[in-house]
Amino acid sequence: MDKINQSRLLGNLSILAKIGRTPDNGVSRPAFSAADLAGRKWFEDYVSKAGFEYQIDGAANQSAILRSSNPSAKTLLIGSHLDSVPNGGQYDGSLGILVGLEVMETLKKRGEDLPFHIEVINFTDEEGQVLGEFGSMAITGELTKEKLHSPRGGVARLRDGMERLEITEESALNAIRPQERFIGYLEVHIEQGKRLEENGIDIGVVSSIVGNRSARLIFTGQAAHAGTTPMAQRRDALWGCVEFVNQGRQLVMEQFTPGVFNVGSIDIKPNAFNIVPGKATLNLEFRHGTEAILDQMQAGLYGLAQESASKYGLELEIVPADVIRAAPSAEIMMSAIEQGATRLDLKHRRMLSFAGHDTQTMAPYIPSAMYFVPSVDGISHNPKEYTHPQDCVNAGDVMLNTVLVLAGVA
Amino acid sequence: MDKINQSRLLGNLSILAKIGRTPDNGVSRPAFSAADLAGRKWFEDYVSKAGFEYQIDGAANQSAILRSSNPSAKTLLIGSHLDSVPNGGQYDGSLGILVGLEVMETLKKRGEDLPFHIEVINFTDEEGQVLGEFGSMAITGELTKEKLHSPRGGVARLRDGMERLEITEESALNAIRPQERFIGYLEVHIEQGKRLEENGIDIGVVSSIVGNRSARLIFTGQAAHAGTTPMAQRRDALWGCVEFVNQGRQLVMEQFTPGVFNVGSIDIKPNAFNIVPGKATLNLEFRHGTEAILDQMQAGLYGLAQESASKYGLELEIVPADVIRAAPSAEIMMSAIEQGATRLDLKHRRMLSFAGHDTQTMAPYIPSAMYFVPSVDGISHNPKEYTHPQDCVNAGDVMLNTVLVLAGVA
Repeated sequence: MDKINQSRLLGNLSILAKIGRTPDNGVSRPAFSAADLAGRKWFEDYVSKAGFEYQIDGAANQSAILRSSNPSAKTLLIGSHLDSVPNGGQYDGSLGILVGLEVMETLKKRGEDLPFHIEVINFTDEEGQVLGEFGSMAITGELTKEKLHSPRGGVARLRDGMERLEITEESALNAIRPQERFIGYLEVHIEQGKRLEENGIDIGVVSSIVGNRSARLIFTGQAAHAGTTPMAQRRDALWGCVEFVNQGRQLVMEQFTPGVFNVGSIDIKPNAFNIVPGKATLNLEFRHGTEAILDQMQAGLYGLAQESASKYGLELEIVPADVIRAAPSAEIMMSAIEQGATRLDLKHRRMLSFAGHDTQTMAPYIPSAMYFVPSVDGISHNPKEYTHPQDCVNAGDVMLNTVLVLAGVA
Repeated sequence: MDKINQSRLLGNLSILAKIGRTPDNGVSRPAFSAADLAGRKWFEDYVSKAGFEYQIDGAANQSAILRSSNPSAKTLLIGSHLDSVPNGGQYDGSLGILVGLEVMETLKKRGEDLPFHIEVINFTDEEGQVLGEFGSMAITGELTKEKLHSPRGGVARLRDGMERLEITEESALNAIRPQERFIGYLEVHIEQGKRLEENGIDIGVVSSIVGNRSARLIFTGQAAHAGTTPMAQRRDALWGCVEFVNQGRQLVMEQFTPGVFNVGSIDIKPNAFNIVPGKATLNLEFRHGTEAILDQMQAGLYGLAQESASKYGLELEIVPADVIRAAPSAEIMMSAIEQGATRLDLKHRRMLSFAGHDTQTMAPYIPSAMYFVPSVDGISHNPKEYTHPQDCVNAGDVMLNTVLVLAGVA
């Protein structure tokens, strides 16, 4: 059975967790922070000590490369990120980078000459403290001037961060790489949910990263005296709003599982104890792994909203907001992961990822897939984030075997 | 048929409407304002010119008195208010005062010697721009130091207003009058709703002014990632909240009509697009004319809230807020109004008042009743407030006949 060096992997996890460590054993390495710079320094030093080729591109993506003897070979990318959310955990992102490096160490030690180069890439600013999936968007050409000029963390923070990393707008926009250089992209990550743990599954093969659509729904009725207006004569905007939330929840649970639906905010006008609400605005989002089903969800939900409004004599306005497209994985990459896990007698299952990852950017660009290992209690983005050592080791063994499957090594 | 002098009544309505008149033909005479003072001056002058006895008490309630020849007679109070909401209409309050004065004029002209004194009272600050039902609370003893120290318009405004009216905290607290002096209280008011107009009724005999109970309901679940948390595992505080609003509306409409129920505001935490609501707080009020039914409504609604919380695994906290007790009218006074209306061949019906009036304060204190005349389109607290001249005249004729019924005059 092909295995990585588990003590080296676990040792590296402990070492990396010291960079940006918080008092409660979490990790705080937001992109472009001093701790992030220290993490990047660690990566560069590690690569150099291990004797791999080191590269950094115009978006400050760092790479460790293990070359095939065939100079015209394509490259298999294995990626994740060393940045974290503020006050996050030790595993999110880090595990993926360390598994990539460990697989390279093992392959190098074994003297394997693969039919492709292996490049382990530390993507810049995945977590989005400043822009989000900055590095993967740069290499796929998704990064645009427009995005650089309206980052969610603000332009000043982005410019300042880019200066620290010694990159420019121009260098980042030129970091795009030709698709044909790659055979595909692989990523391993902790699940950030409880499905694997609850079902006793070792490996979750991500069939798609969900698309996410959001909208603002504005129900308009008639503000009125809450005493003198008989119930039957009210056009209470909240009544349509609550009808929709209730029906929408049922629709999604009954017809679109495992898709999800959230109403995270409601704003009522005039918002007084004793006045019938004249206007109620809700913010809605829904996610699913398949665009065609997202279309069905949207039609179903918007239809329900219209019915809910009509039922109470309300006007409805639907203002679509963000659309993030679903990113289905490539069958060839999922299949390789499943064969790798099967070689190791690990239980695996296909599942959706409901959180975003660099894989979401990579999947439309080159054949991509990612897999999950269990998170205890599903906790993540939190110092309490924990993945059992055996699951970390499984993450490494599966990556090694997946690479071997793709390489055709028995 | 006994009738008032309709041209004098309608003439006085026009004259009074000029005091505090707004550009759009409304009336703005908030309590203690210069326009309110001008209204009060008008009342005093009118009483003096008409040759009635004038009194003002320690709460600045102004009265016109028509004495019985029996010095030990009790008093029938006829009241309302000359203050208005800011930018209100010509009829709210004013009609009641003018009808009282007109009835006194008619009785005086007829030389009726009634078995009771008649006192028409202009209650101070009914509308509550500063405190609300200030004058009626003062004479019934409902006014307390506590209320004077926490008026909704603020202590500074109340003190300033009281100074202008040359009254003090002490004088207002001493304005309480012994119940045994009165045979009862009558008030006529525009309906501020559409029930009379829609049903072709001339006179609405108020069987009770609704009680009003309010509460804050706090549903607590668990804030969570709106992507990675499966729908079936969510403890979404909003789900319980919307279930309650929906069920509560149905309960009140099906079992407690004509009672009403309003949720005027909802506050969600953390109030973000992509986070499952961990907490949802709603402000609720419900009204009915009977305390026993309010108890049933409360039990029903709180029970539903608990069921809605349990259904989604939420905690529920109920924080009761204001309680305003229902004020049922006295049968003897309602019956007198009905006999008065019947003498005039006017269509009448008993109904609830869903808005507060001085009658609400008076009813627990002495036998009281009020009646409504139609408001066009139910509009009030608005410059567009309008009551047809014939309905104003009906208001006066019914008051005259009600007084004669109570006096035993055939």
